[in-house]
Formats: sequence, structure tokens, C-alpha cells
Amino acid sequence: MIASNYKDMLQEKSVIRELFGYALNRAKEIGYENVFDYSLGNPSVEPPEEFTQTLLRLLQETDPMILHGYSPTLGIPSVLEKVARSLRDRFLLPYKAEHIFMTTGAAGAIAHAVRAVCTPGEEVITFAPFFPEYRPYITLSGAVLKVVPPDLSAFQIRFDLFEEMITEKTAAVLINTPNNPTGVVYSEDTLKKLAAILTKRSKEYGHPIYLISDEPYREIVFQGVTAPYVSSYYKNSIVCYSFSKSLSLPGERIGYIAVNPACEQGETIIQMCGQISRGIGHNCPPSIIQLAVAETIMLTSDLSVYERNKNILYHELISLGFSCVEPGGTFYIFPKALEEDANSFSLKAKKYDLCLVPGDSFGCPGYFRMAYCIDTEKVNRSLTALRSFAKEEYNR
Amino acid sequence: MIASNYKDMLQEKSVIRELFGYALNRAKEIGYENVFDYSLGNPSVEPPEEFTQTLLRLLQETDPMILHGYSPTLGIPSVLEKVARSLRDRFLLPYKAEHIFMTTGAAGAIAHAVRAVCTPGEEVITFAPFFPEYRPYITLSGAVLKVVPPDLSAFQIRFDLFEEMITEKTAAVLINTPNNPTGVVYSEDTLKKLAAILTKRSKEYGHPIYLISDEPYREIVFQGVTAPYVSSYYKNSIVCYSFSKSLSLPGERIGYIAVNPACEQGETIIQMCGQISRGIGHNCPPSIIQLAVAETIMLTSDLSVYERNKNILYHELISLGFSCVEPGGTFYIFPKALEEDANSFSLKAKKYDLCLVPGDSFGCPGYFRMAYCIDTEKVNRSLTALRSFAKEEYNR
Repeated sequence: MIASNYKDMLQEKSVIRELFGYALNRAKEIGYENVFDYSLGNPSVEPPEEFTQTLLRLLQETDPMILHGYSPTLGIPSVLEKVARSLRDRFLLPYKAEHIFMTTGAAGAIAHAVRAVCTPGEEVITFAPFFPEYRPYITLSGAVLKVVPPDLSAFQIRFDLFEEMITEKTAAVLINTPNNPTGVVYSEDTLKKLAAILTKRSKEYGHPIYLISDEPYREIVFQGVTAPYVSSYYKNSIVCYSFSKSLSLPGERIGYIAVNPACEQGETIIQMCGQISRGIGHNCPPSIIQLAVAETIMLTSDLSVYERNKNILYHELISLGFSCVEPGGTFYIFPKALEEDANSFSLKAKKYDLCLVPGDSFGCPGYFRMAYCIDTEKVNRSLTALRSFAKEEYNR
Repeated sequence: MIASNYKDMLQEKSVIRELFGYALNRAKEIGYENVFDYSLGNPSVEPPEEFTQTLLRLLQETDPMILHGYSPTLGIPSVLEKVARSLRDRFLLPYKAEHIFMTTGAAGAIAHAVRAVCTPGEEVITFAPFFPEYRPYITLSGAVLKVVPPDLSAFQIRFDLFEEMITEKTAAVLINTPNNPTGVVYSEDTLKKLAAILTKRSKEYGHPIYLISDEPYREIVFQGVTAPYVSSYYKNSIVCYSFSKSLSLPGERIGYIAVNPACEQGETIIQMCGQISRGIGHNCPPSIIQLAVAETIMLTSDLSVYERNKNILYHELISLGFSCVEPGGTFYIFPKALEEDANSFSLKAKKYDLCLVPGDSFGCPGYFRMAYCIDTEKVNRSLTALRSFAKEEYNR
């Protein structure tokens, strides 16, 4: 029988995708340059030239039988070695190849991590606002997603509410810092408190509560901000990384899982990932992409545009009287809408050719997300539209 | 909690992988050229030069933002169009882009197809001998695998036993022709009988029984053999294809699902695949690999070596008195062992540096598989070992 859970998903509408579709259609009418599309989190800068050169070199110099041959179930050993070394050098934890598993981006990493450390019916806690795709990654694994309401003052963690929600059924906690959609970086204080609670509760319940750390924006951190490395604060942590943003390769679907070298059953979790991958017929990301990112792992695209755009937008939003936490990284900002219903707010914004995503699907109604991974020139031009919108609709 | 189903899988030993590991170690002792490793089904011919040239051209001529950008959930439209056209032209069924979903090889395709058309607890029937990886693809989706005992005379289908095993709970039937491990191609007569039974039972139970057709060896068919196109015989059929063998790209993990244009809810199944992929964080194969195979879809590697090897081995096996069905395609042959216990047989073969895989894990004890995707020169040299083995151990 046709599986109704997947079929029913076809009825769900992604607000982000819908807005993106609207922007594409509107661009046909008035020209792409006149639509201020802040809907999609798609990198707007080129991959480093070295990435292209690496692929060309691999194709020209490697025996194609080896280049395109089967990758071992747990990944290409030299690739795992390079990923481990890069983490070891940067974060001073003793990572080895056996702590790494290559995945299809952070998405694949989270989907694998959840399947490894949760049994069906167990709970994964995350914090609003959160990336809406967490829901399918978690619920389709058979686990249950629990969402802690947002800390609206700073987008850190409402620990009082969090403590009420942890139970014996909590198998994992999923965090994302720097954060989509807020752009906020968790402070050292937040991570220390989080770790202390997880350690205490793990002991109380007699099983580890794993901390799954979604880190696709790790490299996009703004001046004056320090992004603490999550795994330094809690031993039972599992990093889910993606090269989509750091190397601007979202379509190549490449990232990794890195279990903390001190993680309970960490090496077993990595080996289990090989079995999970086998069960979904995936069997490792493509060899050539694994090899290419391993060669360029210390590089990033020129990410400076995101900080430039953030500065322009943040100051304009503040001067228009928006309530807004300043992002410390990513290419998102998450201000409070100028009316209670962010959907109605977003609808009105369309009249000004501004595509703003209402915060409801991120678990945070009344707010909206702007993905400012667009040209700075366009950000500047969007300010006139933003001002007219705020003035004409809300008297700002 | 650590998920025990995946953890327990780590205890299972893959006989194929173990033999392959043995061959690698033995090669260190006596030299690679002296180990007759028939264990792994890894292509032994280079990808077509045009594949490499296509990748180089894509890298040199395409805007990297587009080349490495997000692929739409259902695949890159131009890629789907090219796959559909190639199927339309070759098999004369009216395939369109909306009947195609790009996957990580046939493995990913089967894992998606099973999740789309089976609900947990429902049954998928396959026929022994069968590719052992079918078990994780199916059982980890929540469905139940049922295996029809083998037709030892011709490795077609024991329809009497099959008819007894179909029930109301049968959601899908999974076939593989040309077949791993037997090399046998299902005849037109087999496919017609199969289709008639499925049509009758679907009607009786009031729901379609889908036919999932695993076709990674579609292009490896030997002289004088015709491999009928499965989907021409049954409308509710789903092709699972891989480029691993046709283009010798097993490490690049690329293939597709093609639903029969007449398939009940076929287009819905394709759209559901997008959701299944989303749930495992996969979101389409890498863009650059999708684009490259679409450009070279009408090509294959030079596959002639497999037929040469088959001819040599088949004749030698027959002349040594092995009971053996002649393969019509693939790079496998599946003779009867010279003693009842194929594991003991395989163990003795190791003394002659012959790596032969016992048939037990394929659901067919007493037989063994040889994967002759190795150099013809080595096949020829292996004959001496094969003769000594048969003579010294079994007096042949």
C-alpha cells in the first residue's frame, strides 16, 4: 500500500518554498533585480577557485577506476583522516578517523545521528526558533520532536522550560549555533549550563543524553563574536557539519558527523552510521566529492558579504524601530514583525516586493526571517522598499 | 538510547566482505596477481573517456554557483528529461520527467521504492538466490522480506511456491534481471506469467501489488540473449537503475527510479520519493554527478570483457563436471558446489587461492558465486588453480 505518512507530506506547504516560488514568478513580471527575495538560505558567493582546481586535478591525474570506485562503508580512509586532523588542529580535541563519518550535508548527518542514538518513541528536544526540516529528520526516524519555547530576549535558551521538558525518554538534544533562523551564537555561558543539565540528567536517568550539534554555519561568524566549539563543553556530543555554506556547495550534498573522542560508544555510533547508510541504500557520499572537500577543508568561500549585509540590514531595522537581536553569524536575521500575525505582515510586505518568511514554521510566531545571502547592492536597494513598507503599513 | 537494531547489525559478518578482506591480505603475502579473487562485484573496466571529459567540461564551462547549487527536491529538470527520453527511445513507453527520480544507485532506488509502496508490517516477496543487501533495504523500512525458494533447474521462478506466498499483505515483489548472483536473464515467458499472477492477485485483494525491478545489470547482456524490458509486461512496475555497472561508477552513487508511465499513483510515488529523501536528509544526489550521467546516458563502458570471462569460466566449469546454468548477462556465475556444504567448499578453495562466495547468504545453500569482473588474463591463469582444486579435493 502507498505509505500514507510520505503521501500526506505532499499536502504540507513549505512557506519558504512558496515565497521563493512567488519571488521567481514576480521576477518574470518586474525583473529579477526588482524582487527583494530574502526567502531562501542559498549561498550567494562562489566556491573557492581551489575547489574547482582540485576537482580538475583529481579528474586529470587519478586512475578513474580508483577515483570512481566504491568507497569503503565508513568512508575513504584518507578523507576521514583529513577531516579528523582539521578538527584536531582547530579545536584541540583528539579526533581520529574512527570518529568521523561522511554524510550528505548536515541534513544527512542529523538524520543518521538521530537514528543512531534514539529508538522509536524516544524524544529529541530542540529549541525554538528552529530549522523546520528538523521535524522530518526526527519524526521519520520514529523519534518524537519536543520544542522548548523561545527565549525572545536573546535567542539563547529558556533553561527553566528546558528542565521541565527533559524526561527519562529524552535520548538527545539538538542545537544549532550559529543559528538558523536567528543568526545568534550560543554563548559560553549557555553551553556550560546546557552541559551541566545534560550531565546531571544523564546520571539521574542512567543513560547518556546525546547532544547533537548542527553546525553548517560554523565558519560564518562576525567580527567581535566568538563561537565556542560545542563539543568542548560536553563529552557526549555529536557534530553535524556541512560544506554547503563554508564552500558554497549546497547541491553537492557533502558534510560529516564527528563524534566527540570522549563520547560514550562514540566509535560504535560511527560504525552504526555505516549500517544506517546501508539501510537507506546510500553507502557513503560520492567518492570524488569526498576527495575534493578533504583537499580544501581548510578553505572557505569569501564569506565577508554576509557580514556586510548584516550590518546594513540590522542598522536599518533598528532605526525603523524593529525589535531585533543582532546576529553573531550565519546569513539570517530574525526580527519581530510589526504586527502580531507575521503571516499577515509577510503578505503585506509582498506589495513592496519584499519576500520575508513568517516565523511560524520555525516555532516562533510573530517574528520573521530574512536570509540575506544576496548581493549587497540589492540589500541596499531593498532599504527603500523596507522603509516604505514600514511607513505606509505601520506608520514607522 | 543507542538503537539496538543498527548496533546488532555490526555483529553480522558479510561473507563477501570477509572473503574480499582475506584476498587483500593474501595478496600481501603472495602478490596480487596470484590471488584469484572472485568475491566482489566491482566493475573492472574504466568509465568511458566521455564521462571524464563531460565532468571536465562542466567544471570549466559552467558557472560554479549553478553547477554546485541546490538541486530541486525532485531532481534537476534537464536531467530528468534526459533520463525519460533515453527510456522512451529505447523501450517505447511514454516516460516523462515526472516519472523519474534520481537516486544513489539502485540501492537508494530500492530503499526509496520500498518506503513509498509499503507500510510497516507489509510484505515484499523476492526470489532466491537474491542479493543479500535486499534484506537491510527492506527490513529497515519496516516491511517484511519473504523469499521464494529457488528454481534450481534454470533460476527462473518457482511459480507454484510464489503463488502460495502471495497474500493480502503483499505490497511489492522485487526482482533482479539480469540476476545477481546467477547471471540469468528472466525470459519473456517468466515475465508474462509473473505479470498475470500479479494482475490477478492485485484485483483479488483490491490494491496494486507493485513490481520493483532492480536493473543495475541491464546493459550487460551476452550475445544471443535478449533481456526483455520488465516494465513492458506489467503496468505497476518501478525500475531501479544504477550507473555503477554501465558506466563503471560504483563510488559515485548514482542511479534512478523510473515508474511505469501507466503505474497506479506513479507520479505520486515519484513525489513521495522527494519526501523520503528529505526525511533521510539526502535531498537528491550531487548536482555535478546528476548532470554528468545525464550527458553520457547513451554510453557504456566497454563491457565486452565480462562476456569473454563468462565464456572461459562457463566452459571450464562444465568440463570439470560442475552443474551450472549459463549466465545470459551480468558478471556473475552461480554453479553448484562439489559438496553439499558450500562453506566447506569455499574454505577448501582458499588453499588454491580461489575466492569463491558460498551461496548461503544469497538464500541458496550448496551453490557458490564467482564475480568474474577481473582481467581475462587472470581468469585464464585461475583455470589451473580451479582444475587442481576440483581434482585434488573432489577427484574431478
